[in-house]
Amino acid sequence: MNELRIKAQNAKESARVLATKTTQEKNEALTLMAIQLMKEESYLLTENAKDVQIARKNGTNAGIIDRLTLTSERLQDIAEGLKQVASLTDPVGESLSKTTRPNGLHIEKVRVPLGVIGMIYEARPNVTIDASSLCLKAGNAVLLRGSSSAIHSNTALVAVVQRALEKTSIPVEAIQLIEDTSRETATEMFTLNEYLDVLIPRGGASLIQSVVKNASVPVLETGVGNCHLFIDRSAKPEMAISIAVNAKTQRPSVCNTIETILVDHQWADAHFQDLLHSLDEKGVAFVGDEKTQSYDQRIKAADEADWATEFLELKVALKIVDSVDEAISHIHVYGTKHSESIISEDAKNIQTFLNQIDAAAVYHNASTRFTDGFEFGFGAEIGISTQKLHARGPMGLEALTSTKYIVQGTGQVKG
Amino acid sequence: MNELRIKAQNAKESARVLATKTTQEKNEALTLMAIQLMKEESYLLTENAKDVQIARKNGTNAGIIDRLTLTSERLQDIAEGLKQVASLTDPVGESLSKTTRPNGLHIEKVRVPLGVIGMIYEARPNVTIDASSLCLKAGNAVLLRGSSSAIHSNTALVAVVQRALEKTSIPVEAIQLIEDTSRETATEMFTLNEYLDVLIPRGGASLIQSVVKNASVPVLETGVGNCHLFIDRSAKPEMAISIAVNAKTQRPSVCNTIETILVDHQWADAHFQDLLHSLDEKGVAFVGDEKTQSYDQRIKAADEADWATEFLELKVALKIVDSVDEAISHIHVYGTKHSESIISEDAKNIQTFLNQIDAAAVYHNASTRFTDGFEFGFGAEIGISTQKLHARGPMGLEALTSTKYIVQGTGQVKG
Repeated sequence: MNELRIKAQNAKESARVLATKTTQEKNEALTLMAIQLMKEESYLLTENAKDVQIARKNGTNAGIIDRLTLTSERLQDIAEGLKQVASLTDPVGESLSKTTRPNGLHIEKVRVPLGVIGMIYEARPNVTIDASSLCLKAGNAVLLRGSSSAIHSNTALVAVVQRALEKTSIPVEAIQLIEDTSRETATEMFTLNEYLDVLIPRGGASLIQSVVKNASVPVLETGVGNCHLFIDRSAKPEMAISIAVNAKTQRPSVCNTIETILVDHQWADAHFQDLLHSLDEKGVAFVGDEKTQSYDQRIKAADEADWATEFLELKVALKIVDSVDEAISHIHVYGTKHSESIISEDAKNIQTFLNQIDAAAVYHNASTRFTDGFEFGFGAEIGISTQKLHARGPMGLEALTSTKYIVQGTGQVKG
Repeated sequence: MNELRIKAQNAKESARVLATKTTQEKNEALTLMAIQLMKEESYLLTENAKDVQIARKNGTNAGIIDRLTLTSERLQDIAEGLKQVASLTDPVGESLSKTTRPNGLHIEKVRVPLGVIGMIYEARPNVTIDASSLCLKAGNAVLLRGSSSAIHSNTALVAVVQRALEKTSIPVEAIQLIEDTSRETATEMFTLNEYLDVLIPRGGASLIQSVVKNASVPVLETGVGNCHLFIDRSAKPEMAISIAVNAKTQRPSVCNTIETILVDHQWADAHFQDLLHSLDEKGVAFVGDEKTQSYDQRIKAADEADWATEFLELKVALKIVDSVDEAISHIHVYGTKHSESIISEDAKNIQTFLNQIDAAAVYHNASTRFTDGFEFGFGAEIGISTQKLHARGPMGLEALTSTKYIVQGTGQVKG
């Protein structure tokens, strides 16, 4: 057996043990992990420096190097995150429903861990610890497959975490890293149904699509956000502009940032120039449909790809629409079912938009930037699901659980 | 575009309309469907007779022909089923949680339809109507792909149902049958992520495995049941034997029937012969481990495959175990996470079994035959999920829904 299969088998066995651990035992492990991370800071920084040096040598861009780099402060944040996860309510064991049937059977539905979670993710080493801690808290073993560019950091982080687990009743194999970062190994994980209960890919669109297309293990898809803001004719101009600027520019590189602004033509007649001005001030580049060009000749013509693209940068597509229905139809064609917002004071249009838009999160008079596990009050986030099965939108600890029915009888047989 | 893509596109459009329909509109449609089925009975029986005739000509076995055959009485039952679905609570629109965040955002999680459901199923024509009615009630469009052996029946049933929908505000494309029953078309459905939100395969293990292995569309796996009964040393003999007989013989061909009985050696010393006698009376054939053979030489030696096989017939595998832990370990290796039962009066062993067994339904002192949407009180069943994501165990209407977050603000932007 290769490394992957050996570790996957260990993960399955350890998941069985982990599922029986108490909240206190799991929390103690999380706390010890935080302490161990702090204790081994210099080792972790040394190992991380190797990845950073290789990335520099390879001419990796500054943004990626920044995300790859660990500092004393960042390690402190990661350790702090572990303590926060320890403080969250344990979802395992929660009773979701209880019924007694006419034949006297008592049926209770309880939350249980999923089992073994395969995480396939890209560069950031903090994901290694974030994901591990959430999986552990929800009673799951995790098999981590990070990218080769962070291999020294990830190997060191998992070694440190395992040294903490050695001091607990939780098997060290509950958190394992696949050190072979070849593409073949990742591909082999896709079909490891025998050992893995779920795969969670985190990273760029191509990574996620590759997992979705090729995996037979069930996938929690954390997807692309081609998010829209619709400014209705009744929208308060200051609110609409403030939300547009926030939703586009507050952090352009993330999935809950808007990519297209749909503007009602009547609102546009009065306020479009103000909107453009405010976006321009923040350095946003524009593309737009023909009607927008009639308002401002600086706007370049948008092509089909512009409506469908998650820019992840300071660029926005603009379109003038006749009605809420036209806005909804546009979103129906180009949206990725992530986060969509209407700015409006018209009760009927608001209701139509909130009802008819098919997305994980639909907003009224607020920025789409709030689609986030912390902002939603979950205390944690393993990713934002854009699929419709199991979990939709920000995923906290509950998304890392399954259920089981416990049926208690007194000798009942089926007639 | 081929038939599949055209119908899939129509399904997606109709799902958008269907999602906005009221409970009353959906119930009226279900009632009209029932009326239309009764009205067109002779047409339906004539078309069904064609399938039955072809099956006979092909030498199909009597059991399958029986399941394929529609009668006046069976049509009445199907129509009755439609009325029952109409009487069920509509899951769509249910508010699952409501919170107000410190920044004043109101966040509500509501149930919404999944969208478009692809059903891939084998012979029984009643599935055509059962699945259609449940999908419709939960606000979903359905794309049905039945088997070629039921093509005349399915085509007629869907034609009749669509004639009923024509009289309603619900698009007729909400329920469509793919008439091309080639394998290629089924395979094309597996990757139709653009149009399908979920695939539900219903049928034999090979059909389901083919979908699980090859689909990129998320799958609700309704799987194989290799179910076990563990008779603990403290089990009341009459109860244990009565449940063993019921769980094995009441309907051997279904997934919640047991395939292996694990017997504590102390209980076996006193009661194993009685157990064998009762099973033998019902015509059950035995295979077993060496220890069982020492109790009764009629028992043939079980091989590795016997422990792993869903017999679906009057055959059972028997094994003597030393403890609840050995029983759990056996189930951990061979179980399919469907339904497992312990017969015991020992509180500690019962708790250990209920906690440690990883299955959709875990029983104490009751027959596994109760794993069923109707027995669980759901009023309906689209199948029994053996996967851990989204839905586990019997799936009723709720399993056919997703959720969305509705976030209402007063101009909130992210700081």
